[in-house]
Amino acid sequence: MEALLNIDDFERAARERLSQMAYDYYAGGADDELTVAGNREAFRRRSIRYRVLVDVRERDLSTEVLGLRLPSPIVLAPTSAHRLAHPEGEMETARGAAATGVLMTCSTVATCSMESIAAAAPEGPRWFQLYCFGERRLTEHLVKRAHAAGYRAVVVTVDVPVLGRRERDMRNTFVFPDGIRYENFDVLPPPPEEGEGSVLAAWVSQLQTPSLTWADIEWLKGLSPLPVLLKGIVRGDDAARAVDAGADGIWVSNHGGRQLDRSIPTADALEDVVAAVGGRVPVVVDGGVRRGTDALIALALGADLVAIGRPQL
Amino acid sequence: MEALLNIDDFERAARERLSQMAYDYYAGGADDELTVAGNREAFRRRSIRYRVLVDVRERDLSTEVLGLRLPSPIVLAPTSAHRLAHPEGEMETARGAAATGVLMTCSTVATCSMESIAAAAPEGPRWFQLYCFGERRLTEHLVKRAHAAGYRAVVVTVDVPVLGRRERDMRNTFVFPDGIRYENFDVLPPPPEEGEGSVLAAWVSQLQTPSLTWADIEWLKGLSPLPVLLKGIVRGDDAARAVDAGADGIWVSNHGGRQLDRSIPTADALEDVVAAVGGRVPVVVDGGVRRGTDALIALALGADLVAIGRPQL
Amino acid sequence: MEALLNIDDFERAARERLSQMAYDYYAGGADDELTVAGNREAFRRRSIRYRVLVDVRERDLSTEVLGLRLPSPIVLAPTSAHRLAHPEGEMETARGAAATGVLMTCSTVATCSMESIAAAAPEGPRWFQLYCFGERRLTEHLVKRAHAAGYRAVVVTVDVPVLGRRERDMRNTFVFPDGIRYENFDVLPPPPEEGEGSVLAAWVSQLQTPSLTWADIEWLKGLSPLPVLLKGIVRGDDAARAVDAGADGIWVSNHGGRQLDRSIPTADALEDVVAAVGGRVPVVVDGGVRRGTDALIALALGADLVAIGRPQL
Amino acid sequence: MEALLNIDDFERAARERLSQMAYDYYAGGADDELTVAGNREAFRRRSIRYRVLVDVRERDLSTEVLGLRLPSPIVLAPTSAHRLAHPEGEMETARGAAATGVLMTCSTVATCSMESIAAAAPEGPRWFQLYCFGERRLTEHLVKRAHAAGYRAVVVTVDVPVLGRRERDMRNTFVFPDGIRYENFDVLPPPPEEGEGSVLAAWVSQLQTPSLTWADIEWLKGLSPLPVLLKGIVRGDDAARAVDAGADGIWVSNHGGRQLDRSIPTADALEDVVAAVGGRVPVVVDGGVRRGTDALIALALGADLVAIGRPQL
Repeated sequence: MEALLNIDDFERAARERLSQMAYDYYAGGADDELTVAGNREAFRRRSIRYRVLVDVRERDLSTEVLGLRLPSPIVLAPTSAHRLAHPEGEMETARGAAATGVLMTCSTVATCSMESIAAAAPEGPRWFQLYCFGERRLTEHLVKRAHAAGYRAVVVTVDVPVLGRRERDMRNTFVFPDGIRYENFDVLPPPPEEGEGSVLAAWVSQLQTPSLTWADIEWLKGLSPLPVLLKGIVRGDDAARAVDAGADGIWVSNHGGRQLDRSIPTADALEDVVAAVGGRVPVVVDGGVRRGTDALIALALGADLVAIGRPQL
Repeated sequence: MEALLNIDDFERAARERLSQMAYDYYAGGADDELTVAGNREAFRRRSIRYRVLVDVRERDLSTEVLGLRLPSPIVLAPTSAHRLAHPEGEMETARGAAATGVLMTCSTVATCSMESIAAAAPEGPRWFQLYCFGERRLTEHLVKRAHAAGYRAVVVTVDVPVLGRRERDMRNTFVFPDGIRYENFDVLPPPPEEGEGSVLAAWVSQLQTPSLTWADIEWLKGLSPLPVLLKGIVRGDDAARAVDAGADGIWVSNHGGRQLDRSIPTADALEDVVAAVGGRVPVVVDGGVRRGTDALIALALGADLVAIGRPQL
Repeated sequence: MEALLNIDDFERAARERLSQMAYDYYAGGADDELTVAGNREAFRRRSIRYRVLVDVRERDLSTEVLGLRLPSPIVLAPTSAHRLAHPEGEMETARGAAATGVLMTCSTVATCSMESIAAAAPEGPRWFQLYCFGERRLTEHLVKRAHAAGYRAVVVTVDVPVLGRRERDMRNTFVFPDGIRYENFDVLPPPPEEGEGSVLAAWVSQLQTPSLTWADIEWLKGLSPLPVLLKGIVRGDDAARAVDAGADGIWVSNHGGRQLDRSIPTADALEDVVAAVGGRVPVVVDGGVRRGTDALIALALGADLVAIGRPQL
Repeated sequence: MEALLNIDDFERAARERLSQMAYDYYAGGADDELTVAGNREAFRRRSIRYRVLVDVRERDLSTEVLGLRLPSPIVLAPTSAHRLAHPEGEMETARGAAATGVLMTCSTVATCSMESIAAAAPEGPRWFQLYCFGERRLTEHLVKRAHAAGYRAVVVTVDVPVLGRRERDMRNTFVFPDGIRYENFDVLPPPPEEGEGSVLAAWVSQLQTPSLTWADIEWLKGLSPLPVLLKGIVRGDDAARAVDAGADGIWVSNHGGRQLDRSIPTADALEDVVAAVGGRVPVVVDGGVRRGTDALIALALGADLVAIGRPQL
């Protein structure tokens, strides 16, 4: 067997083991996938002007963010559908992450419920990624469950007002195999009115409300005592506004190039956001991170945490 | 059958169905086709710094330009020889455009007459693209017919003082198949002098006069009550001069890279033109638009309408 | 037979007809041939911001340079070894050039004598390219013959202090076939001292003196009444110094990438030279011109004449 | 046999003759080898704006650096494991270098001892490259031996606080064949305490101490009368600090892309370093030099010496 030394190796191995449909779901992006490639290239074209003769005998990668002590600033970005790769899905990912103390961000649309993920690795640090739904009670229900299940922050995705156009999935007529579903919706809040059971399914199908605005941040913060991060910001002015609106952290992301193709690469957006935030809250970044040197560059550009999406898959 | 999800898919499908001669006529450009590629690349290398948390539940793409209410700012650029792709030619294009309310710009050198195109889809919004001929009566004749047939503007092409060198067509010895011709010339104005019938053919063979100048704009405007746009402008100073000369709209174009190879890409020319025009008249742009995100970028750069040429074919 | 529509077509055809050794001699350059490619790319990456609505019915490409009226600013750069491509060599090139009135610059190391070239096309405008030899009498002899044979200017090559490293020729062990030689040396001046016949061969083998300096320009100008151009200049300061030293023209060239690989592309060097010359003498440019649009770009950058080397071969 | 005209030719020939393991050890770099490629590209993208009409009959490449008169500014960078290519290893390299007077920098981890290398070519100019070990007595032992063996300077590598990740070697499970070893460690200083023989091996395995700091330069200078250069600097501020700390020379290097992938290319780092050094000490550069024109560019950017690593192998 070929040695698995880097993410490219793992990607090749995954391509051999996964169905085309699963592989494409993980690897693909929106439209022409220019942003998928652009995210990576934005790190690769940056050079490091390193310093020498610094005593690096003791190297401490640990960091503390929003009350969590982490062994390194590299964390897991929210990704979905882990069961396409492993029968235990996100539970197995949680076990791996916990084994090394890595922070995992669990997706609203995980294929394991947030409670089962928490139970699989109770000691692992974890955040909950939140999609906001048109029906506020559903959003509230998810946040309260996350809090109850020991998640330590809510990461609100703000770059999916509508779903990205992922042509690989369209070509594959992507659909979950039998037995795989978004398990967070196995338990739902009471329907808005008695007898309107079918309304529930409709809620879930509205994956994300396109009407979420800055005014909703305060409401989101009130749903639980958890800190709230906004994920999907690529502009300094938006980042500053987020902090002013009460966000406890900014997550620079373009959804790994899965939403708006042509989005500015995250490495290119980072400095602007970091400057606008001015250290008031932590800044997380994802998108195109494939090497430790990518993470180093992200930190040098001012990120507090560096999240990996596809590489974990 | 392969799914047709994007313009590249349609282009591949067209290549399989069309004769090499027809495909190359549509797809080719001048000389080395550097401008054909450059137009596309100029959009692709631009990044979008999108904003988040804007309420986009209600999305309205409609716009109003020169008195026409349009469902979207994406319109059809003038292109010729639709009968090479479909027996009903431009009439069929007009039906498709009208079905979605899209503005169609019909070419002087269409392979259906402007009257038959208008009759095929009477409700569809349409403009008439005009080549100016050395014999002014022929130009006048075309404009008056366009006005009578319900065209709502005259788009004067100004980037064909001489025809571009299209080497694909030269290699294919491009010629229309039997039965396909420029039907707008089936009816011609009375010859300049009695008995000089052969002069008419000579008129048409002078496809465009190389002596058209700024001084002719006033004359063109006087031929009908229709607004006059100038198509083929790539400089701010030319755009400002056009507005001063009475143009009712500026169409930034390099003829899809079919005229002067090495022309500045239209996306690169757009900002300069928009600034010079200063909102006095609408600005249209074409060249290299293959995705909705290209159109979005064109609008962000200040265009009022975004026209597609090859993609409609 | 494939149509020959552009220089690439001719290059392909030449590759089929010429020996590898001859083709490589014509096509190759120094070292990694980065400057060969760079010259072309420097034109191709420039865009044209064209103007519209200019009356171009009458187009006059003719120009006058150093007393010669020419039908166009496109001229022939000096190139050697035409007999490798045609039995009549430079004489045949001269006939072709004269047929269209194109200025030909004949090389010191032509494979036909300057007198036979002149006789082949007596009416054709022609300049003589001069390599300066360590023995001044040889240089003087060449200039006086050129003047006598009706050449109208002397183009002194200044970018060959030592010969470029052309690895294609080294791999092919390039050597002239029997019967091909530098015919300008069939007649030589009297040897420097009686009986020193073998010295003559030694002169010729010193193809170019590496000790030529600015101080020699005055001497070169005194050898004949002909104007003297300096060919191989790529800097504004050198160009200004050349004019101050009495040069009647500046020829921006890097020897088609055959001398110093990594030389600045000529299109990139042109503006600096044109600005420094300030219109005092004409500026010629060669290197990478493969299309009329390249020539147009060169003129737009300020060149008075645009010379083609390989394309003529 | 194919002619060996340039480094690419030699590289191809080496690939045919060497084992994959040896070839990859020489050719490979860290991680994605972006810096290996970037070093070369940084030279290739620079253009030379050469001057003409300079008398270059007498060309003198010789130079004097730190008391050594050298025939040219091109010198050998330290490289290891020459015995993988030739049974006589670095001794044979030393003979070749001495035959042309080229300065050789011998590596701490050479596969011949520094004494045997010196004996193989006693007249050849040579420097000693030093890795600093955690146990200071080992470092001191190496420097004193280098001084005794006639080495004329100590080149302290400062860019290996930890070893680079070289994936080619990992895939090949790189290991020296029988009989090849780092012969400089055949003789070691007395162990720190009696009877602790096994400690010696441990010393060597700590190839380089990660705790080396600016404060150690003074100590290193005191170990012998030899000048001390610091190799692996890529920043002007580090270079200035090195000179202030007593360094006798700065060697701009990123270890040929074998240490920190993504390091700034050395050609890009050079100007900053040269400006900061301000002529106080000589500046050496290596990384990506494959042609004489690369060396010329390095000198034009201000380097005093230009070192080649892989090309010597």
